[in-house]
Amino acid sequence: MEYRIEKDTMGEVRVPAEKYWGAQTQRSVQNFKIGPSGSMPREIIKAFAFLKKAAAITNCQLGVLPAEKRDAIASVCDEIIDGQLADQFPLVIWQTGSGTQSNMNVNEVVANRAHVLAGKQLGEGERLLNPNDDVNKSQSSNDTFPTAMHIAAYRMLVGTTIPGVRTLRDELHRKAEELKTVVKIGRTHWMDATPLTLGQEFSGYVSQLDHALRAIDNTLPHLAELALGGTAVGTGLNTPDGYAVHVAETIASLTGLPFVTADNKFEALAAHDAIVESHGALKQLAVSLMKIANDIRMLASGPRSGIGEITIPPNEPGSSIMPGKVNPTQVEAVTMVCAQVMGNDVAVSVGGSNGHFELNVFKPLMIANLLQSAELLGDACRSFTDNCVCGIEPNHPRIKEHLENSLMLVTALNPHIGYYKAAEIAKKAHADGTTLRQAAVGLGYLTSEEFDEWVVPSKMTGSLD
Amino acid sequence: MEYRIEKDTMGEVRVPAEKYWGAQTQRSVQNFKIGPSGSMPREIIKAFAFLKKAAAITNCQLGVLPAEKRDAIASVCDEIIDGQLADQFPLVIWQTGSGTQSNMNVNEVVANRAHVLAGKQLGEGERLLNPNDDVNKSQSSNDTFPTAMHIAAYRMLVGTTIPGVRTLRDELHRKAEELKTVVKIGRTHWMDATPLTLGQEFSGYVSQLDHALRAIDNTLPHLAELALGGTAVGTGLNTPDGYAVHVAETIASLTGLPFVTADNKFEALAAHDAIVESHGALKQLAVSLMKIANDIRMLASGPRSGIGEITIPPNEPGSSIMPGKVNPTQVEAVTMVCAQVMGNDVAVSVGGSNGHFELNVFKPLMIANLLQSAELLGDACRSFTDNCVCGIEPNHPRIKEHLENSLMLVTALNPHIGYYKAAEIAKKAHADGTTLRQAAVGLGYLTSEEFDEWVVPSKMTGSLD
Amino acid sequence: MEYRIEKDTMGEVRVPAEKYWGAQTQRSVQNFKIGPSGSMPREIIKAFAFLKKAAAITNCQLGVLPAEKRDAIASVCDEIIDGQLADQFPLVIWQTGSGTQSNMNVNEVVANRAHVLAGKQLGEGERLLNPNDDVNKSQSSNDTFPTAMHIAAYRMLVGTTIPGVRTLRDELHRKAEELKTVVKIGRTHWMDATPLTLGQEFSGYVSQLDHALRAIDNTLPHLAELALGGTAVGTGLNTPDGYAVHVAETIASLTGLPFVTADNKFEALAAHDAIVESHGALKQLAVSLMKIANDIRMLASGPRSGIGEITIPPNEPGSSIMPGKVNPTQVEAVTMVCAQVMGNDVAVSVGGSNGHFELNVFKPLMIANLLQSAELLGDACRSFTDNCVCGIEPNHPRIKEHLENSLMLVTALNPHIGYYKAAEIAKKAHADGTTLRQAAVGLGYLTSEEFDEWVVPSKMTGSLD
Amino acid sequence: MEYRIEKDTMGEVRVPAEKYWGAQTQRSVQNFKIGPSGSMPREIIKAFAFLKKAAAITNCQLGVLPAEKRDAIASVCDEIIDGQLADQFPLVIWQTGSGTQSNMNVNEVVANRAHVLAGKQLGEGERLLNPNDDVNKSQSSNDTFPTAMHIAAYRMLVGTTIPGVRTLRDELHRKAEELKTVVKIGRTHWMDATPLTLGQEFSGYVSQLDHALRAIDNTLPHLAELALGGTAVGTGLNTPDGYAVHVAETIASLTGLPFVTADNKFEALAAHDAIVESHGALKQLAVSLMKIANDIRMLASGPRSGIGEITIPPNEPGSSIMPGKVNPTQVEAVTMVCAQVMGNDVAVSVGGSNGHFELNVFKPLMIANLLQSAELLGDACRSFTDNCVCGIEPNHPRIKEHLENSLMLVTALNPHIGYYKAAEIAKKAHADGTTLRQAAVGLGYLTSEEFDEWVVPSKMTGSLD
Repeated sequence: MEYRIEKDTMGEVRVPAEKYWGAQTQRSVQNFKIGPSGSMPREIIKAFAFLKKAAAITNCQLGVLPAEKRDAIASVCDEIIDGQLADQFPLVIWQTGSGTQSNMNVNEVVANRAHVLAGKQLGEGERLLNPNDDVNKSQSSNDTFPTAMHIAAYRMLVGTTIPGVRTLRDELHRKAEELKTVVKIGRTHWMDATPLTLGQEFSGYVSQLDHALRAIDNTLPHLAELALGGTAVGTGLNTPDGYAVHVAETIASLTGLPFVTADNKFEALAAHDAIVESHGALKQLAVSLMKIANDIRMLASGPRSGIGEITIPPNEPGSSIMPGKVNPTQVEAVTMVCAQVMGNDVAVSVGGSNGHFELNVFKPLMIANLLQSAELLGDACRSFTDNCVCGIEPNHPRIKEHLENSLMLVTALNPHIGYYKAAEIAKKAHADGTTLRQAAVGLGYLTSEEFDEWVVPSKMTGSLD
Repeated sequence: MEYRIEKDTMGEVRVPAEKYWGAQTQRSVQNFKIGPSGSMPREIIKAFAFLKKAAAITNCQLGVLPAEKRDAIASVCDEIIDGQLADQFPLVIWQTGSGTQSNMNVNEVVANRAHVLAGKQLGEGERLLNPNDDVNKSQSSNDTFPTAMHIAAYRMLVGTTIPGVRTLRDELHRKAEELKTVVKIGRTHWMDATPLTLGQEFSGYVSQLDHALRAIDNTLPHLAELALGGTAVGTGLNTPDGYAVHVAETIASLTGLPFVTADNKFEALAAHDAIVESHGALKQLAVSLMKIANDIRMLASGPRSGIGEITIPPNEPGSSIMPGKVNPTQVEAVTMVCAQVMGNDVAVSVGGSNGHFELNVFKPLMIANLLQSAELLGDACRSFTDNCVCGIEPNHPRIKEHLENSLMLVTALNPHIGYYKAAEIAKKAHADGTTLRQAAVGLGYLTSEEFDEWVVPSKMTGSLD
Repeated sequence: MEYRIEKDTMGEVRVPAEKYWGAQTQRSVQNFKIGPSGSMPREIIKAFAFLKKAAAITNCQLGVLPAEKRDAIASVCDEIIDGQLADQFPLVIWQTGSGTQSNMNVNEVVANRAHVLAGKQLGEGERLLNPNDDVNKSQSSNDTFPTAMHIAAYRMLVGTTIPGVRTLRDELHRKAEELKTVVKIGRTHWMDATPLTLGQEFSGYVSQLDHALRAIDNTLPHLAELALGGTAVGTGLNTPDGYAVHVAETIASLTGLPFVTADNKFEALAAHDAIVESHGALKQLAVSLMKIANDIRMLASGPRSGIGEITIPPNEPGSSIMPGKVNPTQVEAVTMVCAQVMGNDVAVSVGGSNGHFELNVFKPLMIANLLQSAELLGDACRSFTDNCVCGIEPNHPRIKEHLENSLMLVTALNPHIGYYKAAEIAKKAHADGTTLRQAAVGLGYLTSEEFDEWVVPSKMTGSLD
Repeated sequence: MEYRIEKDTMGEVRVPAEKYWGAQTQRSVQNFKIGPSGSMPREIIKAFAFLKKAAAITNCQLGVLPAEKRDAIASVCDEIIDGQLADQFPLVIWQTGSGTQSNMNVNEVVANRAHVLAGKQLGEGERLLNPNDDVNKSQSSNDTFPTAMHIAAYRMLVGTTIPGVRTLRDELHRKAEELKTVVKIGRTHWMDATPLTLGQEFSGYVSQLDHALRAIDNTLPHLAELALGGTAVGTGLNTPDGYAVHVAETIASLTGLPFVTADNKFEALAAHDAIVESHGALKQLAVSLMKIANDIRMLASGPRSGIGEITIPPNEPGSSIMPGKVNPTQVEAVTMVCAQVMGNDVAVSVGGSNGHFELNVFKPLMIANLLQSAELLGDACRSFTDNCVCGIEPNHPRIKEHLENSLMLVTALNPHIGYYKAAEIAKKAHADGTTLRQAAVGLGYLTSEEFDEWVVPSKMTGSLD
């Protein structure tokens, strides 16, 4: 490989000749060989591009950066936002806990890429932009990285998670409506219970997701608060007047999201409770999805020796010789994602709780976990919807068989023949392994016609009222 | 011990003669010898008393329960709410996951206690109240236990947790105001950084708690939704018209809290996401408190060989021979509570994620953890405030020493003598182990008077503007 | 309430007249009103009694404590070990993180109780024993509390947890043997799969518990290492020569357990990895039990509309009118315990990771969680065994029905009629909703007799070879 | 992009023309767009290559596979083990929970790559190897994926984790020896305590890591048990006699690791307690490392206003103007890794606890978390050692200053001047802010020479005996 020489205050470093990054990035590459390279989430890099551009615009407006530099910075930022230059960010999550090195990675790439865009050779000639003095102007790693965290998290939540959950919610709602008159046996303690409709069962899932969406929404205002303007310790040292408010407005305008400057910059650097809070809502969603997905897995079990009250689409060969062996693979992906999110929640909390004094230094860990959880949940909801939920069908014969076999329906006879005779019927049916109807008629307490008139499961569901 | 015979549908059971409970409670006592007896939280029992009373009132209003029975039920419920009869609830958390046995415990105690209040002998004569038919009328364990969970949780949060946190928040705010001009060295990465004021540092804690309080508040509407009226599987089988809305209003009126009937009873029985959600907010609070308490512990460290920038009240002998060894014992209690809450959050999530079909059967586990976390956090905040935070004092000499020793102040010289000379001063001070002032004057770059004029840490904090 | 005056180095304190504790305990009572009083586990108090007695014996042997004092200390310790004096230990878990206050509670109670045993009045006259100088001789809170942690944990594990797990393991093994020829349908992905025997299924549970027991055993050597002799920071300051080894031997002899002095006392005070390690094994056990209990819950589901391949004993009325509604309440208790243990594991880890310098100050939290987990798991295993597992019976008709209905058995026909005809049979059976036999005979590919000869599920299980 | 047509039992699928994978892999690519593509760990793919080769060798030895096919399979497996073909495995973790699709991915790639190695065109002509009948012979996804899990986990633990930890342990041990006479102030509760040596402090870290290594070792026997030979549900259906034992021996021989066939295949498919167990040990290691790394971060804090008793190497520019601002970036990376591992432990436990009947379907999740934790811990230990620990130096002046300033040394005067005078000295020093020596001499209780003779901190550490 060919190299060029880059310098920082500690001296010279050899950098791969064709890479835009500089000395500080390269030192990080060499000092932090922990896990796969480039693990710092790409969403963080894009968020940095938004904020660097916003800072340049604001600095220019406030008279501390010439328009030429602003434009040079903005051009490279636009490329990054556009998904270009992806191979210029080799750093890992497991670096300094302030994320300083990724901030410098962006600063260095912006400065060098601008140099090339201006028609110059990498490493040759004077650069228009200095990574620290220009690209990082009115900023510190300590306020930029938290700002990038909030931008990246907010974008992922509104761009992937919430739409994914909403897609699933809407499809479940459609199913709940469609199936609202399909009466089936209820199950409590995994034991047969009084009936409800399949639509009612699904409506519970819809309600869970509605609550989860509301919980996520509740966390967005905290996430909308940006640290930028706090600089090194939260006091705003070395920022021009009005900078914090202005730069937050610019970020809001560039992203189309309701960002504001944080009321208290000390909290915004020293703690990342907004990340803890949002991840808590994602964890709640994971808990809900685990329940929903498990139910669907169990309802679809069989085809012969399980519950089998619904069928799900066959997406891949289950068994070549075994028709009907449709494994609930989408459910399995969803529930694995839920388990991951439940674990990530602990990682985020441990990171959040270990900040000291003016700076929490578990930043890359915290945001990496949040972004993973948010993306996986959003993707999994969409995959689950498209490849499973939308193809759910009731298995009417099976539902009917379970319902008719059930002994719980006997309660409908109480008003007609009294509790004791009703219980006697149930006991006989249980002992003989017959249906309630057979036992009832056999005991001579009522006719088959009376049974049909009195035992109407749908009346027990309240759903047709 | 003397016994009397009680019966249920499975036959006879011997019950301690003087206890109000009946056969089903006794069976649970015998079948669930898991951990210390009586572990079911007392708040759940009180919550049951509220709901049994409300159900009796509603049943009477809707014409399905005579006033005499309503009054008999209400009288015993009032005793329970009042904290009497505490020794009548021997059951453990680790029973059936629906909490049915605790529901029956309450039903049995109400029926038998009413019998005694009516002047009769326990176990003799006809009882006015039947535990199932009267006390449990229009109810099922499956909707009463979740209702009791929400009542108990809501009361604990607004009665203990929130006031405790607010007390701490207000005291920290008072300190932040009081100390807002005490300039001190900042610390990032545990390394000396640019200055801020002690008040600014504390204002970050206030902001954390403000966000935590908002997060808890956000979860209350979900917790305000009551399952009562859903009965066995959520369909409301066997409840009179209008019951669900009415009984929620009655509970709201009896407790003075904004309870409403849950829109979707299927969710309210089959999932306990409201508990997951509220506990998530408590976990966020724990994460915040861990940070705050750690800072205070570290700021108060010493007295000689630590940070020592604040002092905290000595509440107990640290060491008889060692003056000034004031152990941060309150901090230690708080941080242990935080660790417990972080663990409980996982227990709640695991329980919440494992519900199946129409009923989640991790109810006692989930509410026991929520109540413990909520109580401990509230109590710990109050104890921390009263016994530690309110006695925090700045250690001015130490703060001054750290500030003056710091090499970070050199940045204030940049505008006057330029970056390079400033750096030279810092390097000399670091190498020689002197103060910046000594190095600056020694190098002849400025006078002692100029140093005092130019290096004014308070100007670096932005706090005096 | 009546009081007497007790003193410590900070002055006078009013103590309830009839209580044995002194000033330092009382200060803790007043300063730590966090959660229910007396929450410090009783096992820790007993463990302290063992170690105080052992220290007195060792101090006497090494010539630094007179025999009279040794005997006075030992007498009170014997009372405590015997379960007396339980109302003399009012302190909570949420006190100083070193557990100093509970150490002093024991010291004070021993000194005052010895005074009373000697026929004197509480608070009057000269005491034979000074809490610090005699009862705490050659000790520090910093080495006694960790020692008590290990003693209490070890005793709980070998006294409750391991026997409980072994009871369950042996009963499951008995069932596995008993049911080893009961051929049944297998289930993977919750879908019908090739057959195995019920005994084979249960043998997997036995194997899980065997591995869990081995995992717990693996952690005992670390737990056997005692900190005593390290005193304040691990250097052993103020202990007589040979003390550490000697006192560990004495504790081993008094408890009948293989305790040894820790090789490295600095680790033993500053970290509690042994607690983390043992709790990790308990968490593994919880994970195993959750799987086992879930399987049993699902296998017993029904009675009509579930899996229903086994029955479990009815321990309490499920539904008065609904015969066969036997709720798996023991399973529910077990799985709630598992969820708690999974949560406690995080609390223990958070506590364990937050030690600083020479002392971890999350000691009471860590041991309280370990003891709770260990006790609950042991109790739950025993309860589950006695009240559920030992009464498990196969439901032969149901097992046979599931097996015969299954389409997976068709694979047994491959060698006889070839893959394609076999698949054709399965497809026809699935489409028509018939048995394989019906489809096979219907298609004319084989006779009913041939079917019976070739399709022998037991041959597919390998279990009869 | 160009495509070719591949088929499976569900019909035709378009596959990128140049890829070796087939229809089932392609279906998974399309059905599981969850998170970044190719997330299934590469170590799992290599482990599959070992097991496919071992199965081919065993099948050939047992007479069910011709030597030609064995050799064709082995050749491709060798390529995969060698790290080639990395772009042929596009599947994600979040697929079917049995990992079936990754098993098929390997089967398809082996079959097609062998076809190409034989000089044929992809998608043209008859293949020597059929993915199912040959490459997957005597196997099921249900036993291959767990086998690959154990192979991959074992290799990562012994190849990366253990060597990394041992490197750190050895370097800390070297430091402990080197620094064993450097007497310093001890700290308990973050407060000054009696002295110890820096070497003693470090020896505690060594002991923690020794225990962690032992804990990891303890889990290896469980991990050495292989599921292969259990096939679909653990009964070993469709495997030749002796296959299970044989194939495990072959895997042991190919990997050089002590693999054996699992005693109980039902456990090996239905539960992954071995993964839970090993990850538990990793979590313990994370807890230990968090403590060690935190200590080093705090000991190195400053340079002026922190503890500052050690220095660590400057690896990157901290602050250009601020000499001595050496951020503990390696510590930050380590502690972030620890937080991740603590979270992953919960994910693994949740996955492990949710297996049902004959198959746990959280396999990819569980192994992905274990591999990540194991790799990160190993890498982080090595990075921490090389870039931080090996450059730790004591800051003697600071250590001496803290030690001499300390008031705790006064305890050394007790035998000479009595407790009360000693306490008086300490109180005067505390009040006046002087050293003990100054106070002692000032009070006239001893001479400066006596002070030097009597107050010898090293004698208080026990380390020079």
